[in-house]
Amino acid sequence: MATMLRTGAHALLPSDPETRALAGELYESVAEAPIVSPHGHVPAAWLASDAPFRDPADLLVVHDHYVTRLLYANGIPLESLGQGGAAADPREIWRVTASNWHLFAGTASGYWMTETLRTVFGIDAPLSAATADSTYDTIAAALATPDFQPRALLSRFGIGFLATTDDPCDDLADHATIAAATDVDARVVPTYRPDKYMEPAAADFPERVAALLDAAGVAGEGFQSYLEAHRVRRAHFAAHGATATDHGVDVPFTADLSPARAEELFARAMRGEIDADDAVVLRGHILTRMAEMSVDDGLVMMLHPGVRRNHHTATYERFGPDTGHDIPLRTEYTDNLRPLLERFGTAEGFHLVLFTVDETVFSREIAPLAGFYPAVYAGAPWWFLDAPDAIDRYRAAVTETAGFYKTAGFIDDTRAFLSIPVRHDTARRRDAAFIARLVSEGRIDHGTAMRVIADVTTTMPTKVWKL
Amino acid sequence: MATMLRTGAHALLPSDPETRALAGELYESVAEAPIVSPHGHVPAAWLASDAPFRDPADLLVVHDHYVTRLLYANGIPLESLGQGGAAADPREIWRVTASNWHLFAGTASGYWMTETLRTVFGIDAPLSAATADSTYDTIAAALATPDFQPRALLSRFGIGFLATTDDPCDDLADHATIAAATDVDARVVPTYRPDKYMEPAAADFPERVAALLDAAGVAGEGFQSYLEAHRVRRAHFAAHGATATDHGVDVPFTADLSPARAEELFARAMRGEIDADDAVVLRGHILTRMAEMSVDDGLVMMLHPGVRRNHHTATYERFGPDTGHDIPLRTEYTDNLRPLLERFGTAEGFHLVLFTVDETVFSREIAPLAGFYPAVYAGAPWWFLDAPDAIDRYRAAVTETAGFYKTAGFIDDTRAFLSIPVRHDTARRRDAAFIARLVSEGRIDHGTAMRVIADVTTTMPTKVWKL
Amino acid sequence: MATMLRTGAHALLPSDPETRALAGELYESVAEAPIVSPHGHVPAAWLASDAPFRDPADLLVVHDHYVTRLLYANGIPLESLGQGGAAADPREIWRVTASNWHLFAGTASGYWMTETLRTVFGIDAPLSAATADSTYDTIAAALATPDFQPRALLSRFGIGFLATTDDPCDDLADHATIAAATDVDARVVPTYRPDKYMEPAAADFPERVAALLDAAGVAGEGFQSYLEAHRVRRAHFAAHGATATDHGVDVPFTADLSPARAEELFARAMRGEIDADDAVVLRGHILTRMAEMSVDDGLVMMLHPGVRRNHHTATYERFGPDTGHDIPLRTEYTDNLRPLLERFGTAEGFHLVLFTVDETVFSREIAPLAGFYPAVYAGAPWWFLDAPDAIDRYRAAVTETAGFYKTAGFIDDTRAFLSIPVRHDTARRRDAAFIARLVSEGRIDHGTAMRVIADVTTTMPTKVWKL
Repeated sequence: MATMLRTGAHALLPSDPETRALAGELYESVAEAPIVSPHGHVPAAWLASDAPFRDPADLLVVHDHYVTRLLYANGIPLESLGQGGAAADPREIWRVTASNWHLFAGTASGYWMTETLRTVFGIDAPLSAATADSTYDTIAAALATPDFQPRALLSRFGIGFLATTDDPCDDLADHATIAAATDVDARVVPTYRPDKYMEPAAADFPERVAALLDAAGVAGEGFQSYLEAHRVRRAHFAAHGATATDHGVDVPFTADLSPARAEELFARAMRGEIDADDAVVLRGHILTRMAEMSVDDGLVMMLHPGVRRNHHTATYERFGPDTGHDIPLRTEYTDNLRPLLERFGTAEGFHLVLFTVDETVFSREIAPLAGFYPAVYAGAPWWFLDAPDAIDRYRAAVTETAGFYKTAGFIDDTRAFLSIPVRHDTARRRDAAFIARLVSEGRIDHGTAMRVIADVTTTMPTKVWKL
Repeated sequence: MATMLRTGAHALLPSDPETRALAGELYESVAEAPIVSPHGHVPAAWLASDAPFRDPADLLVVHDHYVTRLLYANGIPLESLGQGGAAADPREIWRVTASNWHLFAGTASGYWMTETLRTVFGIDAPLSAATADSTYDTIAAALATPDFQPRALLSRFGIGFLATTDDPCDDLADHATIAAATDVDARVVPTYRPDKYMEPAAADFPERVAALLDAAGVAGEGFQSYLEAHRVRRAHFAAHGATATDHGVDVPFTADLSPARAEELFARAMRGEIDADDAVVLRGHILTRMAEMSVDDGLVMMLHPGVRRNHHTATYERFGPDTGHDIPLRTEYTDNLRPLLERFGTAEGFHLVLFTVDETVFSREIAPLAGFYPAVYAGAPWWFLDAPDAIDRYRAAVTETAGFYKTAGFIDDTRAFLSIPVRHDTARRRDAAFIARLVSEGRIDHGTAMRVIADVTTTMPTKVWKL
Repeated sequence: MATMLRTGAHALLPSDPETRALAGELYESVAEAPIVSPHGHVPAAWLASDAPFRDPADLLVVHDHYVTRLLYANGIPLESLGQGGAAADPREIWRVTASNWHLFAGTASGYWMTETLRTVFGIDAPLSAATADSTYDTIAAALATPDFQPRALLSRFGIGFLATTDDPCDDLADHATIAAATDVDARVVPTYRPDKYMEPAAADFPERVAALLDAAGVAGEGFQSYLEAHRVRRAHFAAHGATATDHGVDVPFTADLSPARAEELFARAMRGEIDADDAVVLRGHILTRMAEMSVDDGLVMMLHPGVRRNHHTATYERFGPDTGHDIPLRTEYTDNLRPLLERFGTAEGFHLVLFTVDETVFSREIAPLAGFYPAVYAGAPWWFLDAPDAIDRYRAAVTETAGFYKTAGFIDDTRAFLSIPVRHDTARRRDAAFIARLVSEGRIDHGTAMRVIADVTTTMPTKVWKL
C-alpha cells in the first residue's frame, strides 16, 4: 500500500543531475520511515469515533483555512465556502475550489492538495472546472469505504506517533479511547496547550482560571494555586502519554519575578485590573514557571510566538478564529528569552523547542541560541514557512551555525489529516536535497549524509520529543 | 525592430540545461508582450514635447541617480557628474563613467546599461576608457535622428501602458497633449502622488495645503475641506486617465480617528503646532481617508514606505533630493496597516498594492496579508530590490504563501526611460526562471507554468491596476 | 608546499558543470594569492615567542569556542573540554570531540576542521571515535617539529598581512619583537580596540579611563583629556603598523553632542552616576569622535555591532567571556549611524567598514549606505555568517546595489590560527562561485569576472585597509 503514497520520483529534488541522483538516494533511504508528528491539530475525536469523513469539501476545503483564505483573498465569499457555519452545498464548494485551482499554483497548499489527491485517491487529472465533478465523485466514493476511515488512513499513512493539541481542562477521554483501541497501532497522545489560561489581560481570565482550578481540583485563589493547577493538569496529560506542552504568544517575552511581585500581578489580573504591559510581564513569568515545571516533569516545552491573531475583527466576529487572518509579527528571542534561559537554559533534561514565522531569526537568534544552550532546539519551519523553498532557507540559515543535531525534526501543524504524509514527504525531500548539495560541494561525505538524513527524519524527533 | 531589443538567449536564465530550456520556452512566450508600466518617473513633458534627448550623458548618467551615486561612492565628485546644476562637459561625464564601468559589475544598473546600449544602440563593446569616445559618438549620432525621439522609442519599446507620477496640483496639460497626439499609441496616464500635502509636521504644510485647496477650487479651512480638495484633484486625475494614487512614507502607520480628533490635529498642523508623533497619527489618518476615497472613486492605492529620504543633509542642501542617499528603513506592516485594513481591507473593488525595500516583510507580512485581504496585492520588488537575485528572493518568499495571483506585476519605477525595456525583460526572465524551477521540481505542471507566466506578465497588472 | 593546503578540486563550487568549470577557473586564478587578514584574534605573543603549540586539543578545541559551544549544546560539560581553567587530559578532550564529530556535519566549524586536518596535517580519515587516537598522535607528532611552530606556519600558509586585535594600553612589545624578527616575512600589525574604555555605564569605567590616561601619559580629568589619551595611544598603534581601529557595541547608536553636553555626560560617568540611556548617548558621541580621529590619523574604522555578550550569566561567571553564548541582536544602521555619517561620511580618506550578524541589513541598509557614502564599505559576513551559504547570501544581497568595489574583502576574525587558510579559501571559492553564476547568467563577461575575483581577493582589502 505504501507505494500509493509515493510522490513523483524527482519531486522537490534539485535539477542538477548529479545532485538529484544523490538526493534521490538519500530520500529513498527514509521515504518509508514511520511518520513522527509531534505537533498538529488533528482532533482526537476523529480517531476516537473513527466515523467516516463527511464529504470531500468538508474534509479538504472547509476546515483548511490555508485553502479558504486564498480563495477569499481572490474574491470568493467565505460564506460560499461554508465558513462560519454557513450552509453550502459541498459539491458547490468543491466546484468553486477546483475552478479556481490556478490560484494555488506554486503555493504549499496547492502542492499538498495535488499530491494528496494523487497519492491518497489516485487522482492524476489537475483540478479544474472540468474535473470538479469527477474528482468530487471519486473522493466521495472512497470516503464511503472502510479504507478511508480515520484509523485505516492513520495506519496506511505510516504514522507512528501523532500528538494532538488539547485544552488543559480536557478530560482526554478521546485519547483513552484511542489508546484502548486494538486497531490503532500508532501512538496518539495529547499536548498540553494552556494559552487561554495564560492571558492575564483577557476579560474572562478569572473565569478561565476558575475553570482550570476546578478541572484540577485545586482550592485557593493565589498564584501558587494557579501554578499547582497547571501541575496537576500536566500530570493528567502525562498520564495519557503527553510528552510536551505548547505555547503560542504574540511576543515571547519572559520574566522571572519575585514571588511577591508575581502574586501581586496575578491578584490584579484576577480582579480585572491589570494593564497590558503588566499582563505581558505576568505572562512572561508564567512562561518561566512553565519551563520550571518542564524541568520537573520532563514535558518538552514548545514555543510558537509572533503572530497577531484575528487581524480583521469583522471577519473574526462573523466567522470565528482560524479563518485565515492570523498575520506574523517581527519577533525577538535573544533578549526576550533571556530571563527564562538564564534560569533553565542549561537545566538537565529540559527541552525548549523554538518556532518562528519570522525567518530573520533563524540565523540571527535561534541557531546561535540552539548552538549554545543544551535545552534549546531549533523547531522546524512552521505555518507559512513549512513549504519547499522556506524549508531550504531554514536549513541554509540554521545548519552552518547549529548543525543538524540541534534541530527538532519536522512538524506538520495541521488539521488537514489527509495532507500529513505529503507534508512529511516534502520535508524529507527538501532535507535530502539540502544534504545532497552539501555532499556535492564537498562539505560532508556520503556516509555522513546517509547518517544525517536518517537522524533528522527519525532520531532527532524521537530524542527531542522524548518519544 | 523588436529583435533589436532582445537580450542574450540565455541571459538571466538558470544554468541547469533542462531548467534553462524550459525557462527559455516560458520567456519566449511573453518576451514580446506589450510593456505595462503602472509606476514610474518618466516626465510627461518628454513625451508631450517629443524633443530629442540632449546628449548621452544627460540621458543615461546625469539623471540616473543609481549611476551617479555609485560613482560618487567610489570617489568621483558629484559636481563632475553634472549634479546640482554643475556645469560639466557631457563627453567628460561619459568618459569618467565609462572609465569606471567595472564599479558596476554585478549591479542592476550595470546590467541595465550594458543591455540598453546593446539593444537600443547596437553597442556590443564593453564600456571602458578605451570605448568611451566611440560609444559616446554612436549614441549622440543616434539621438540626433527621429528614431530616437521619445515617442518613437515609446513605440519601438512596445510600451502599451505608461503611468507617470505627478503632483496633485499639476494641471496635467502634458498628459492632455500626449492623449491628443496621433503618433502615440501607448496609453500614458498620470498618477496622483500627494506625499508633500500629507506631511503635517513640514514647516510649509499650511502653504502646501493652501495650494491644494486653490488648485481644487475648494474653500474653507478645516480637515473636511482638505479632504474635499483631494477628492476634486483625484477626479481631475481620473479624468486624465489616472488609475492609481501613490504614497511614499517613512513609516506606514495608519489610523482611523474620530472626526473631531482629526479636525483638532489638522488645525494644530495648520498652525504649525503639531509635534512629530501627532503628525504621524494625522498622516496615518489621512492615509486611511485616501483608502476610503479609493473605495469611492476606484483609484488603486500604492504604498511605497520605509525610506529615510536625504540621509546626508549637506548633499541634500547642495545637490537636492534624489541624489542617491535615500536609505531604506526596517518596516512593519502587520500592526501599522491594521487600522486601514480593518476598515477597507475587504471593501469591494479596493486595491492596495504594498511595496517594500525591507525584504524581510515579503514572507512575514506582505504575503500573509495578500493571502487573506481581497484588497491587498504584493507589489513587485522595488528600488534597490528590482534586480535579478532580489526578484528571485521575492518570488520564493511570496509564492508559497500567496501564489502568483495576489502579486501585482512588475514596475520599473524609473526616470531612465531607455532602460524600461531591459528592466521589464529582466523581470520576465527571472519570473520564467522561477516558474521553470517549480516545474522542474514537480511543483506545477507545464500547462500551469505557461498560464502563470502570461498572467504575471500581462493579466495581473491589467487587473490589479484596472487598465 | 602550497599544494598541501589545497582543498578538493570541486569543494564549495556549484554543481552545474558549466558554472563549476568557470568557477574553478576563477578560483584557480586567486587560489594561491597571499592571504590578507585585516581582522582577527591570533595572539601576537604566539608569533613573538614562536613557542610550539602545546597539544592538539589546546590548539584545535580548547580555545575555539565555536567548537566547544556546539559540543556543550549537545550535552558535553564545558569542564570536560578544559574550559574555565578546568584540568582535562588533552587526549580525552580530543576523544570526546572526535567521537561526537557528526554534530558538526554541515557547520562551518566542521568544514574548517576537516579541511585543516587534511591540508595541514595530511589527515584524510574522518574524525570519529575510531580515529581519535591516531589523529591525535599524528597532530601531536607534527606539533613537535619546527615546521609546525607559529612562524613556520605563518609562512607556509602564505599569510602576507595579519592584523591582531589589541588593548589600547598594550605596549605592543610583542609586535615590536615580530617586526624585528628576520624569519617573519608577513606584515603583522596591531589593531586599536578600545571597547572597554568606551562603556560609560560599566562599574569600572573610571578605573579604565584612569588606566588609559596613564598609558598615554595624559593629565587632566575631563572629556578632552580622555580624547587626547585615545589620540596618543592611536599614534602609538600607528607607529607599530596599525592601520585600523575596531569597535564592538551592542547598538551602533552614534551621536554628535555639543562639547558642553559631552563634558557633562562624561563627568557623570566618571562619578558612576550615568544611567543606561545616557551611557549609550555618550558612547555614541565617542564613536563619532573616533571617526573624527580616523579622519585625522587615517586609521580605518571597523564597526562590529549587534551582539548580546555573555547571554548566560552563570556560564560567564564560571567560565569567563568568549565561551559561546554571545548571541546576535537585531540591528539598525540607517538612523543609528546617521549622526556620524552626517559629519564624516563624505570626509576625504575616511574608511568605515560595517559588519553585521543581522543578515537583514545587507540589502536594506549596508549596501545602500556603501552605495552612496564614499567612506562606507560593506564588511565581509562575520562571525556566525562567515560560512559558505551565508557568504552566498551576502554577495547576493550586497552586489546588486553596491557592486564588488564597495566591499572590504574577507576577514577571518579568528583565534583558530590553523583554520586561517581554509577560511580564506572558503571565501575565495564562494566568491568564485558567485561570480561564475553572474557570467553564466549573462550578467558580466568573462574578462570582468577575472578582474573582479582578483580585486575582491587582493585589491579591495589592500585599498580599504590601507595596506
